[in-house]
Amino acid sequence: MRPRWVACGAVDLEQLVAAAREGTPRAVARLISLVEDGSPRLRELAAALAPHTGHARVVGLTGAPGVGKSTTTSALVGALRADGRRVGVLAVDPSSPFSGGALLGDRVRMGEHATDPGVFIRSMATRGHLGGLAAATPQALRVLDAAGCDVVLVETVGVGQSEVEVVALADTTVVLLAPGMGDGVQAAKAGILEVGDVFVVNKADRDGADATVRELRHMVSLGHGTRSSQGSTPMGEPAHRDRELAGPAWRPPVVRTVASSGQGIEDLVGALDDHRAWMADHGRLGDGPRQRARAEIEAIALADLRARIRDLAGAAALGELAERVVAGELDPYAAADEIVSSVRG
Amino acid sequence: MRPRWVACGAVDLEQLVAAAREGTPRAVARLISLVEDGSPRLRELAAALAPHTGHARVVGLTGAPGVGKSTTTSALVGALRADGRRVGVLAVDPSSPFSGGALLGDRVRMGEHATDPGVFIRSMATRGHLGGLAAATPQALRVLDAAGCDVVLVETVGVGQSEVEVVALADTTVVLLAPGMGDGVQAAKAGILEVGDVFVVNKADRDGADATVRELRHMVSLGHGTRSSQGSTPMGEPAHRDRELAGPAWRPPVVRTVASSGQGIEDLVGALDDHRAWMADHGRLGDGPRQRARAEIEAIALADLRARIRDLAGAAALGELAERVVAGELDPYAAADEIVSSVRG
Repeated sequence: MRPRWVACGAVDLEQLVAAAREGTPRAVARLISLVEDGSPRLRELAAALAPHTGHARVVGLTGAPGVGKSTTTSALVGALRADGRRVGVLAVDPSSPFSGGALLGDRVRMGEHATDPGVFIRSMATRGHLGGLAAATPQALRVLDAAGCDVVLVETVGVGQSEVEVVALADTTVVLLAPGMGDGVQAAKAGILEVGDVFVVNKADRDGADATVRELRHMVSLGHGTRSSQGSTPMGEPAHRDRELAGPAWRPPVVRTVASSGQGIEDLVGALDDHRAWMADHGRLGDGPRQRARAEIEAIALADLRARIRDLAGAAALGELAERVVAGELDPYAAADEIVSSVRG
Repeated sequence: MRPRWVACGAVDLEQLVAAAREGTPRAVARLISLVEDGSPRLRELAAALAPHTGHARVVGLTGAPGVGKSTTTSALVGALRADGRRVGVLAVDPSSPFSGGALLGDRVRMGEHATDPGVFIRSMATRGHLGGLAAATPQALRVLDAAGCDVVLVETVGVGQSEVEVVALADTTVVLLAPGMGDGVQAAKAGILEVGDVFVVNKADRDGADATVRELRHMVSLGHGTRSSQGSTPMGEPAHRDRELAGPAWRPPVVRTVASSGQGIEDLVGALDDHRAWMADHGRLGDGPRQRARAEIEAIALADLRARIRDLAGAAALGELAERVVAGELDPYAAADEIVSSVRG
């Protein structure tokens, strides 16, 4: 009798990956748990997944709490399923250093898709290990990719540095707004165009929707800084996203939705497909995968270097240097120089 | 005639620091801007500030959007001022990679303190440079410390990995909740005790306040995992916060407030002082400063290493490795190994 891969102790990763590729939900869930838990076998897992990936298209959804991200995600899942596409959902919770677990309760809203074998839904909580979100999200995406998903929706709360960094690594990033969310549009005006490839004004049946749509369209018409036309990242780190600085610009559409009733969701699917077609026409379908690979490699490398900083000898050195900084004998840059020297040693 | 330090071009950092120490608001603001902008002269600034710091006590405030953090912070400022203490406020916005600027509009609520010469208020937006929040916040704290603040209140939105990491580096961390915020307490139950030294149930005049207070007190009475009694960090990284694993535990009080009317604010000030006295009695007043120095040194060292990864040669190597990962020829761990080797070269 073959050993069951769900047994405790040594997990047969090859078998788990094979089961995931056949679409076994339990195998997919187990693999993502390994990623989330920062399993010591992540290296082995990455090697096992590598040959089976590169198919899935990643759509990021972000927006402030209350704009209806989960409802929109759920409606999108329905529409994509109706098209016969296999869908993964990765809900990246704000890491919840509070709890080491998911804080959001609204994952349950996706319950309607829970029994659909063509849908994998996973709420992820990363715990700051191994580069945190930047490393764990691409790894989880790779699991869903290997499991045969055509589209993976990554939903993150639009607050927090790492959360936005992650959603910006999607092939297409959707920024959601809602009317009556205070001065959100006004306040965000300066830069919200930068991460959105598609804008959604959800709850478009509410007062103020016209004004929000008009304002967004106006901002988009100014055309500055949309990310598909730019080389710099939302983090202002140019090396991170190496898209051309010149060349034709994608003009992000503004779509109205009432996700709770499904209104406008077909338009949103159309806008996503339009963006994909535009990227294909401009030879840029590889941008997203390349950026995700870069971010992941960098996150893993930094986590490795960080672990070296924190190793036994390093921890003692760091503690001693911290004491001297507290005493005002040393400034933190000089202290950091010593750490870097010892890591490079 | 002496050159004015506000002149463009070369800023005389020594003069700026001297002016900040005399309490000149403009000098303080200018120095924090240098920190925010990731000035190339941060090293020099850190060296100039180092001898003048170590006095300020740092109080962190965090909680979900809508619990009344800004109102509570403002009320606390009033109470501390009435005590004759010099107060700094650092409102750490969720970094806003969207805008490169502050998204929150409610800083204006603190307008009542804007003309008080004993109060420095600053809304900070970090842009992911140089270790992001983890490096910039301690640097800004050091500026306010050198400017003679007795207490610095650091307010962060309680969402996002780095934001919570920052607030957890305070000498005393206040976690705010409000009744009727949905299932917040329920959902956060698993771990919210971990970062709070003092809990506040704000909007305590609302329905459900009694239940929220009762539930919190019950959780606290279970006594697990309060951070003043533990050695591990909220990020699950033991080396980061080196408090004793054993020893007596601080039991976090639960304070009721109606910050908008000032009700309960004296109790909150009392709770903060109690925590400080407890830390002093247990020989642990140095914990906070040491942890902040460690976090800052580590963030600067990691930023340095990251810059090395991204330098010209490294960027080319990273791009090439990313292509191979995308093609499934290489897994990201193997790619990261190559990067680490070249950085350590």
